[in-house]
Amino acid sequence: MEQADIGLIGLAVMGQNLALNLNDHGFKVAVYNRTYAKTKAFLAGTAAGTQIIGSESLADFVASLAKPRKILLMVRAGEVVDKFIDALVPHLEAGDIILDGGNSRYVDSNRRTRTLAEKGLLFLGVGISGGEEGARHGPSIMPGGNKKAWPAVKPLLQAITAKVGDEPCCQWVGEDGAGHYVKMVHNGIEYGDMQLICEAYQLLREGLGLSADEIAKVFAEWNDGVLNSYLIEITANILTQRDEDGSPLVDKILDTAGQKGTGKWTGIDALDLGVPLTLIGEAVFARCLSARKDERVAAAKALPRVQGNGPKHRASYITHVRDALYAAKIVSYAQGFMLLAEAANEYGWKLHYGNIALMWRGGCIIRSRFLGDIKKAYEQNPALENLLLDDFFKGEMLAAEAGWRKAAMLGIELGIPTPAMTSALAFFDGYRSATVPANLLQAQRDYFGAHTYERVDAPRGEFFHTDWIGSGGDISSGQYDA
Amino acid sequence: MEQADIGLIGLAVMGQNLALNLNDHGFKVAVYNRTYAKTKAFLAGTAAGTQIIGSESLADFVASLAKPRKILLMVRAGEVVDKFIDALVPHLEAGDIILDGGNSRYVDSNRRTRTLAEKGLLFLGVGISGGEEGARHGPSIMPGGNKKAWPAVKPLLQAITAKVGDEPCCQWVGEDGAGHYVKMVHNGIEYGDMQLICEAYQLLREGLGLSADEIAKVFAEWNDGVLNSYLIEITANILTQRDEDGSPLVDKILDTAGQKGTGKWTGIDALDLGVPLTLIGEAVFARCLSARKDERVAAAKALPRVQGNGPKHRASYITHVRDALYAAKIVSYAQGFMLLAEAANEYGWKLHYGNIALMWRGGCIIRSRFLGDIKKAYEQNPALENLLLDDFFKGEMLAAEAGWRKAAMLGIELGIPTPAMTSALAFFDGYRSATVPANLLQAQRDYFGAHTYERVDAPRGEFFHTDWIGSGGDISSGQYDA
Repeated sequence: MEQADIGLIGLAVMGQNLALNLNDHGFKVAVYNRTYAKTKAFLAGTAAGTQIIGSESLADFVASLAKPRKILLMVRAGEVVDKFIDALVPHLEAGDIILDGGNSRYVDSNRRTRTLAEKGLLFLGVGISGGEEGARHGPSIMPGGNKKAWPAVKPLLQAITAKVGDEPCCQWVGEDGAGHYVKMVHNGIEYGDMQLICEAYQLLREGLGLSADEIAKVFAEWNDGVLNSYLIEITANILTQRDEDGSPLVDKILDTAGQKGTGKWTGIDALDLGVPLTLIGEAVFARCLSARKDERVAAAKALPRVQGNGPKHRASYITHVRDALYAAKIVSYAQGFMLLAEAANEYGWKLHYGNIALMWRGGCIIRSRFLGDIKKAYEQNPALENLLLDDFFKGEMLAAEAGWRKAAMLGIELGIPTPAMTSALAFFDGYRSATVPANLLQAQRDYFGAHTYERVDAPRGEFFHTDWIGSGGDISSGQYDA
Repeated sequence: MEQADIGLIGLAVMGQNLALNLNDHGFKVAVYNRTYAKTKAFLAGTAAGTQIIGSESLADFVASLAKPRKILLMVRAGEVVDKFIDALVPHLEAGDIILDGGNSRYVDSNRRTRTLAEKGLLFLGVGISGGEEGARHGPSIMPGGNKKAWPAVKPLLQAITAKVGDEPCCQWVGEDGAGHYVKMVHNGIEYGDMQLICEAYQLLREGLGLSADEIAKVFAEWNDGVLNSYLIEITANILTQRDEDGSPLVDKILDTAGQKGTGKWTGIDALDLGVPLTLIGEAVFARCLSARKDERVAAAKALPRVQGNGPKHRASYITHVRDALYAAKIVSYAQGFMLLAEAANEYGWKLHYGNIALMWRGGCIIRSRFLGDIKKAYEQNPALENLLLDDFFKGEMLAAEAGWRKAAMLGIELGIPTPAMTSALAFFDGYRSATVPANLLQAQRDYFGAHTYERVDAPRGEFFHTDWIGSGGDISSGQYDA
């Protein structure tokens, strides 16, 4: 029997759809699942009539693969990945390739690349985005790890990935956990995009009093402009969906969102690296707050909101809300690329920002026209310090700024929370402030902790201490960090 | 020679001052420093004429202590603590006590409590706040760890700590790393308080055009009211300080703040535990942004701000700014206690929130009249779910709300960043919203990832999936987390 081009482990929805996608592109796929019943059901069901083959034992599965073997893990991130790797290793030989397509932490992929290399095996940590549909018809794929494996898997991955024009949304990202890092930041940005859409929806609904159908139309119109993107498109679709009783289905869905995983990791890494990733941070926290449903319901009674009136000029405020969504989104991506740059610096990766924008441009959940503009910005200037300083985005920001402020003030006036939009605005205003009030903060730290400060009229790196209270004062805090 | 009551290792400013403080209270203190020169200088300098003794070798130092030995480490958090513990252990015997007074991570204190207990030694992770002055004359002390050690060290720690009335600002916190956890949250709150003061200062300076002297007067007045606190008091003092040329010193201080350490750890733990600690998160990120001075200066030229006019009624806006500072501060503490509650739940600690408020009420950097109100709230109702639901704070919030919104809108209108004030406002508005737009978010997740959702008209825990696009649809995402 002809051996398979690639093996795939884990037949949850993403695994099934990737197997079918690989099959569509002429690759012979062997599949394995911990419970064989699921494999049998898949082969007899959606995989019926394909070239896909299945095995009951891991040994048979590995034996069915052409060498060098390529095995794609589509299992839950964490221990399960290590367990499968441990189970696979005795069956493999030097030069075989293990790809982890789950949402693994990049530190785990760093480790796995290293430990498998010691055994002569090639590990790739591969971020995959696109949900069910993407996996089935063309996801975004972000591969990193052991670069020796790249030539062997490149034809397969670039065949099944989404395309923008002729360009596959799958390019080499970098060594070790770089692929999973970029996927992590992608997911963080996805958190931000979704939160921004929710805030826009709430402003339109509660601030302007629009119905679900009216809001669906607004999002459909926005989808024809600069905001054109998968998430805006599906939002318009969602809002037209009816429940069995004919009312909008969205109103029947409970307003509590989960948040465990890559979104919070992005925020944690930003804090660790000292990158002001405020919008994603607020988006993650907004999910945490949404989860406290009972507490919110009780608080709504204890701290009732004074109902205000929305503005009279609804049409112009719809545009303000769009401007707020757009400008805040630009800030979110600028922050995301700031994090990538700091990570590249910290972990020694050479990231190609234009390629990252390309990979996100199609196939994945955050795909958008906008990412084409980002790609262009980094193509024109690969050393661009910040997206906000690119000529195109500078112009977009200044054009959207006034509406953004009006939308934010509307939310504040009416008590409609827009944490991501206002956080982005505060970041923007801080970013373009030559002077922020951290001078006072440094004075406080020197006052209570003798932490010293730098001066505007002295070279950087020269530190001063003031005896503020005129009592002690010639000892600075030294090594102790109070 | 009479043996010492306590040994102290590490003679940076905090260590020196704690030694002097212990001496003042009649305890005989032995000190040790890695470099003996510093010990000699201390004994010949500020410690001259005291009972404090010093040793050149660690063995002599340990030998000079009465049993059970009590050794307080005041050294840099991290490896240095482990190195000193390793060096001490061979000299110690069962029942001896090691106290770590640095800003150690609570996970390290968890570990040290456990590993030293295996050797029969008692470890305490002790958070200490108050800066130079606090250490010298009465800090706030937050002890946790091996409770068997508490009776022996309680008289010493409660003698040197700050007092509120007769109550010492040092009470048993909890097992393992609980003391350092509470100190970590204290520091996070300190970040938030300082950021709020900076934002208020910037609104008064740039929004209302007040001079440093005028702002000093405003802060001095605020210090007589609900905002009465150490940080407000020193801010007033700082703003009156003159540079050699007679101009306000604060204007000569460079506006770049450091942020490594406990502030970011607080944010990281909040993300990990899923607690919406938005204000502290923004405060940490604001420091990160302040550090990018050169980039901000360049961005200020590339993205110039349109100068607006401040409001005419300066006096009423000064009150609005105070209301914003006060209300946002209440939110920050409410979020901090939410984090403590979640940590207690997660790590199995029994925290006494009233005692925590008491420990922060005096001695430490965040000491304030306000913390007396928090103590009262938890005394009246130890099971209080959230500070915002306490009758007193509910009233304060509703009274400050209108001014808070006006101050936030002033900042947004004029382009003055107030990330902490607006983030707190968005949290408050979200917290008291029975319905937030996470229903749309859940619809999106179900649309692209078959993540399922709960319904408002079905019991919690029952999950639904909609075939949004009418194509596939009976498989939900199962174990794979896209």
